[in-house]
Amino acid sequence: MGFKVFRLGFVSVYLSAPMLDGFATGASFTILTVQAKYLLGLKIPRHQGYGTVVVTWINIFANIHKTNVCDLITSAICITVLVAGKEIQERYKDRLKIPLPTELVVVGGATLASHFGNLNHHYGTSVSGHIPTGFIPPQVPSFSLMPRVALDAIPLAVISFAFTVSLSEMFAKKNGYTVRPNQEMFAIGCCNIIPSFFHCFTTSAALAKTMVKDSTGCQTQVTALVILLVLLFFAPFFHALQKCVLACIIIVSLRGALRKFKDVPAKWRASRNDAVVWLITMSATALISVELGLLVGISFSLICIIYKTQNPRVSLLGRAGDSDLYEDMEEYQNLVPPSRVRVFRFQAPLYYANKDTFLKTLYKAVGVTPFLEMTSRRKAEKKAKKISMTQAQANGDTNNGDVVVALVQRQLDFHTIILDCSAIPFLDSTGLVAFQGLLKEFAEIGVRVVLACCNTSLIDTLQKGQLFGKGDKDMSKMLFHTVHHAILYANIQQPDKSSEDSVL
Amino acid sequence: MGFKVFRLGFVSVYLSAPMLDGFATGASFTILTVQAKYLLGLKIPRHQGYGTVVVTWINIFANIHKTNVCDLITSAICITVLVAGKEIQERYKDRLKIPLPTELVVVGGATLASHFGNLNHHYGTSVSGHIPTGFIPPQVPSFSLMPRVALDAIPLAVISFAFTVSLSEMFAKKNGYTVRPNQEMFAIGCCNIIPSFFHCFTTSAALAKTMVKDSTGCQTQVTALVILLVLLFFAPFFHALQKCVLACIIIVSLRGALRKFKDVPAKWRASRNDAVVWLITMSATALISVELGLLVGISFSLICIIYKTQNPRVSLLGRAGDSDLYEDMEEYQNLVPPSRVRVFRFQAPLYYANKDTFLKTLYKAVGVTPFLEMTSRRKAEKKAKKISMTQAQANGDTNNGDVVVALVQRQLDFHTIILDCSAIPFLDSTGLVAFQGLLKEFAEIGVRVVLACCNTSLIDTLQKGQLFGKGDKDMSKMLFHTVHHAILYANIQQPDKSSEDSVL
Repeated sequence: MGFKVFRLGFVSVYLSAPMLDGFATGASFTILTVQAKYLLGLKIPRHQGYGTVVVTWINIFANIHKTNVCDLITSAICITVLVAGKEIQERYKDRLKIPLPTELVVVGGATLASHFGNLNHHYGTSVSGHIPTGFIPPQVPSFSLMPRVALDAIPLAVISFAFTVSLSEMFAKKNGYTVRPNQEMFAIGCCNIIPSFFHCFTTSAALAKTMVKDSTGCQTQVTALVILLVLLFFAPFFHALQKCVLACIIIVSLRGALRKFKDVPAKWRASRNDAVVWLITMSATALISVELGLLVGISFSLICIIYKTQNPRVSLLGRAGDSDLYEDMEEYQNLVPPSRVRVFRFQAPLYYANKDTFLKTLYKAVGVTPFLEMTSRRKAEKKAKKISMTQAQANGDTNNGDVVVALVQRQLDFHTIILDCSAIPFLDSTGLVAFQGLLKEFAEIGVRVVLACCNTSLIDTLQKGQLFGKGDKDMSKMLFHTVHHAILYANIQQPDKSSEDSVL
Repeated sequence: MGFKVFRLGFVSVYLSAPMLDGFATGASFTILTVQAKYLLGLKIPRHQGYGTVVVTWINIFANIHKTNVCDLITSAICITVLVAGKEIQERYKDRLKIPLPTELVVVGGATLASHFGNLNHHYGTSVSGHIPTGFIPPQVPSFSLMPRVALDAIPLAVISFAFTVSLSEMFAKKNGYTVRPNQEMFAIGCCNIIPSFFHCFTTSAALAKTMVKDSTGCQTQVTALVILLVLLFFAPFFHALQKCVLACIIIVSLRGALRKFKDVPAKWRASRNDAVVWLITMSATALISVELGLLVGISFSLICIIYKTQNPRVSLLGRAGDSDLYEDMEEYQNLVPPSRVRVFRFQAPLYYANKDTFLKTLYKAVGVTPFLEMTSRRKAEKKAKKISMTQAQANGDTNNGDVVVALVQRQLDFHTIILDCSAIPFLDSTGLVAFQGLLKEFAEIGVRVVLACCNTSLIDTLQKGQLFGKGDKDMSKMLFHTVHHAILYANIQQPDKSSEDSVL
């Protein structure tokens, strides 16, 4: 059973905190559902496959008339005592030096009551029955079971590994050492493969126990001897223990995860993204299945990140006073837009999934869509030529046509677009094509596009794509270290036109 | 059949060019496999489910002794003629004004040969058989088939929609108008739902036909009348046509997609990422199934982007001459590292999947891991105290202990870390926690962390996370507009210590 944990350590990186939280709550809800029948003393076969929660609840309500009253009463008492114990524990934890042994008291009391009241015989309650003690002789694990448990084992392995690593990193930080995830993974793998020959459960880390041990000063595994004693000698005493008591303990221990429902509105206010990830993961885990819930959670978290890069913040920049700093004109006040130049900033990697956004937002920001502009210019040109031709025919003057065309082309109030690439970490091949297209399109309507603040990996990509022409001959004309340099250059290049325009 | 195309338009955004290329090649390979049996005249039941390609090829080789020689010869002739036709077409396309009707010639010739040679009767070749003409009366589509075709319909719908949108955008650009993807989607949805009552195939756009029509000047749908004529009157003539001829035409038409295998090395040199995406998508499509191939391709492309943001470029910055510009010291030469300050730049959004990378690369770049530093300091402190205590006991001097401790703490050659956030577009809640932890950790070892070049959305997130203390009281001490300002501030704050250190 405890096999196949030789997995890649990188998976745990993709488990975000809200996703794990949602997964824990969803899984708790599933466990609660599975245990609920014991509370009522119902005998329902366990549902396998998708939608366990829904199917099980339907079964429970369909069989609710078969409820064992004795089990129900015992459950109610146990839950009350356990919740009360936990509440007292939480409220007075500063004064209590040791944790309250509520579970021990409940199990002991219930066992005694059941044994001496002979509840099993009188009321037909289900009891734990025979619990074997001692060790079972070692045995090769049954390989025929492996295909059946393989699917369930994957989320178990991922989750237990992620928990172990995050726990060990927590304590590593506290006690001042470092943890190598892959080494840990190897250790957990061994901890699961060797015991599989001895009828063991899978190994994992438990936060609560580790905390207690750390705070009481444990440093090695010798403390496990206590559990050994229980295993060897005390188990038979629990023969008469009702199953519902164990179910109560499990359900009450899930309180923490289930209580997270209350935090959802606060989470929503703090970060909508986190709240949505939590809800989606929780719903998928509870409603479909635990494994698919994990998958949905991981995928959805990643899609959220992708979505953010797809809809990045874009801005037109303006100059701050007389400095050479340029900032977002929507966010800061008193910025002066540079004359006859547009400075556009795109804050995300530029790749296939957001190149359309890039182009659209750029067109919108500068107020011009080059190919539409081209079409309307061509039409205007045709019209103007027609008019001027008729005029020219009337006047006998043949040069007038060109002048009108020149006038039509002089509509834009800027001659250069500066792309501030400081917040573009990388560019993929589709992004490169978008850049190339952009340059060409704007060149057709007489607008120069230059780049500022590119990082070196971006420059490499652009050079490979021959954006600066052969041998990078246009590089000094197109690539500037700062927005300010680019603006100075742009205004030097076009002084005649701006003066010409000021006359118009 | 042609149902369920009311899908969200956003899906097409996730189809990257190398992914679509790989998918087309993989799908072509699948079609080639399915058609291969007709070339040999084999009668093999079509394999359903995963691994069609592998299973079909195994079946073909298992049944290869049953090859129909007549079909094989016909196929060889047809393929030779078709390939030759295509090659001539490509080589002399400048001189040829109309496309060569090779397919028409082959179909015509093969039909005549088959009809007059009576190949079906003599050699048992498979023929098209009866082809119905005219229109079939309208009929409600069979809803009972829907669950069986639903899964196949999803990739069909996505791909056909993506092709249509990208085609229409191409021609929109050429002819100067814009396309609204959602409106297009609605149109395609109608084009598929209404004909489903008339026994039609699904509607989609075909690049080749659109190109031909566009270049010959078509603008409306009237040209479709030609096809209507074929449907109504010419179909019965093809009764004797061998199936292998049709298979040949299909296979030869896949040449373009299959020839992309040759481009893989060039692709690999241009962009490894694109080549890997292409290979993965192609393999998944060919080896597993067309639907899963699409899913794998989309997921893998996204994972590549995520991976890039997980392993971003990080750098320590140095000053360029006397300017106030700071750049990557590894990439540019002759930069001066600022004295006693480290400037660190991280070029990616900071979120749950890369916060560990962020912390690790930062620790490595500045050469200090705060919590390890704390531990070693505590140890050194203890040791120093012990020594000084013994010394003090020997000398009768009690102040010496503190002096030694102070000496131990003065190991680092910098007092401030400046995080250049200009390339961090956004921060999620986990990233925020990482920032907070960072500040606290470095504060413990006496290093100040300040931020420079944050964009406004980043500042919002940091304010919400109370990184600047209550009421943002520390904002002016921690947030600077440029790296240069931050360095100036840091050196003003710590002048005494640096002078003190220069003495030491």
